[in-house]
Amino acid sequence: MTTSPKMARGLTTTPKTARGLTTMNRIIRAAEVEFGRKGYHYTGITDIAQRAKVASGTIYLYFTDKYSLYVHLLTQYGERIRRDIAKNTKDLTDRGEIERVGLLSFLKLVKKQPHMYNIIWESLHINPKLFIDYYETFARRYKTQLDHSQEELTDMDSTVLAYALMGIANFVGLKYVFFDKKSDLEYVVDEVMKLYRYGILGLGQNKERPAGKGPTDAE
Amino acid sequence: MTTSPKMARGLTTTPKTARGLTTMNRIIRAAEVEFGRKGYHYTGITDIAQRAKVASGTIYLYFTDKYSLYVHLLTQYGERIRRDIAKNTKDLTDRGEIERVGLLSFLKLVKKQPHMYNIIWESLHINPKLFIDYYETFARRYKTQLDHSQEELTDMDSTVLAYALMGIANFVGLKYVFFDKKSDLEYVVDEVMKLYRYGILGLGQNKERPAGKGPTDAE
Repeated sequence: MTTSPKMARGLTTTPKTARGLTTMNRIIRAAEVEFGRKGYHYTGITDIAQRAKVASGTIYLYFTDKYSLYVHLLTQYGERIRRDIAKNTKDLTDRGEIERVGLLSFLKLVKKQPHMYNIIWESLHINPKLFIDYYETFARRYKTQLDHSQEELTDMDSTVLAYALMGIANFVGLKYVFFDKKSDLEYVVDEVMKLYRYGILGLGQNKERPAGKGPTDAE
Repeated sequence: MTTSPKMARGLTTTPKTARGLTTMNRIIRAAEVEFGRKGYHYTGITDIAQRAKVASGTIYLYFTDKYSLYVHLLTQYGERIRRDIAKNTKDLTDRGEIERVGLLSFLKLVKKQPHMYNIIWESLHINPKLFIDYYETFARRYKTQLDHSQEELTDMDSTVLAYALMGIANFVGLKYVFFDKKSDLEYVVDEVMKLYRYGILGLGQNKERPAGKGPTDAE
């Protein structure tokens, strides 16, 4: 038995018909809800089949087992985030603008897929290698992009920078999307942009402020 | 039955003797290893008792059940991180320096407690409220401290800033402590400090650079 790239992504067979593709996507979306709500260990293939309104056997047409289905979902998240960001930033050249639009794309995606954190972070327990691969793959690609904009960026280790930016996006997403379900995500992104522009010590910003304390938008 | 602050922390009884305290701490450390390795759901009180070399009944002297023991451990992490940072930064007044030393304290603690991520992030599945409380409590206190240094900081929403800084610490910790087990954490902190000082667009830094491309320490 050979391991094809498809297998590595957890998928056994690619559907050959449009109807097959629809069924497969319904299975993936059902798995997402079940894994997200009950967690991986408490979700059975039968739960997923019931939610997707298919027979359990149908799931096995596409996926070897629950684990393969999970790996597929996890891989899809990474790809979806990167694709969304790439699509929304494709006409931009300014690095600051790319980061602004990229962060907004990520937050909007998290809003549409509220189970994302649960499912991605559960990989830490299901198989830590999946968790590490997920973030390392993401960071490697991010670093490559940052390196292309090297001239515009603070002169620092771009792997540290990639992880720092991923950390900001993830934790700001936790707070404003996952905890607070905030609708005004533009506000949040604008605030983060101040950090991107001036750092935390406001070196550039302070120079722009009038003398004295200056206005504050802290609550 | 009243709910005392102790109960809220998951602890039933405070040990009255030094020996009792030693036993309780052994139970907590054993729970940490078991939860960290096998995950909460696959860890039984008997596993913890075996590792701690006590009878299961001894655990119930201090904790109502497995959940209380978990909540206690989670609360301890938050307190330990804050205590470590407070101790190491108590003589500092410069905000940049406080952040540098605070980040280094956090990374060193993660190094000593490799199961920390697993245990904290598993709360997302055990009870999302625990997860939210953990980070909201941390962020609220961080925000208060940032507000005290308002004059030194970039003029921005300090809750957004608190979450961004927590995100940076957590993700840089993931990469360099959890994934890479790197020993030179000072290097990592120095790199992050460039982001804190200049932002990502290097506004202040570029001015300091000689004309042209400037040196790079990217790998």
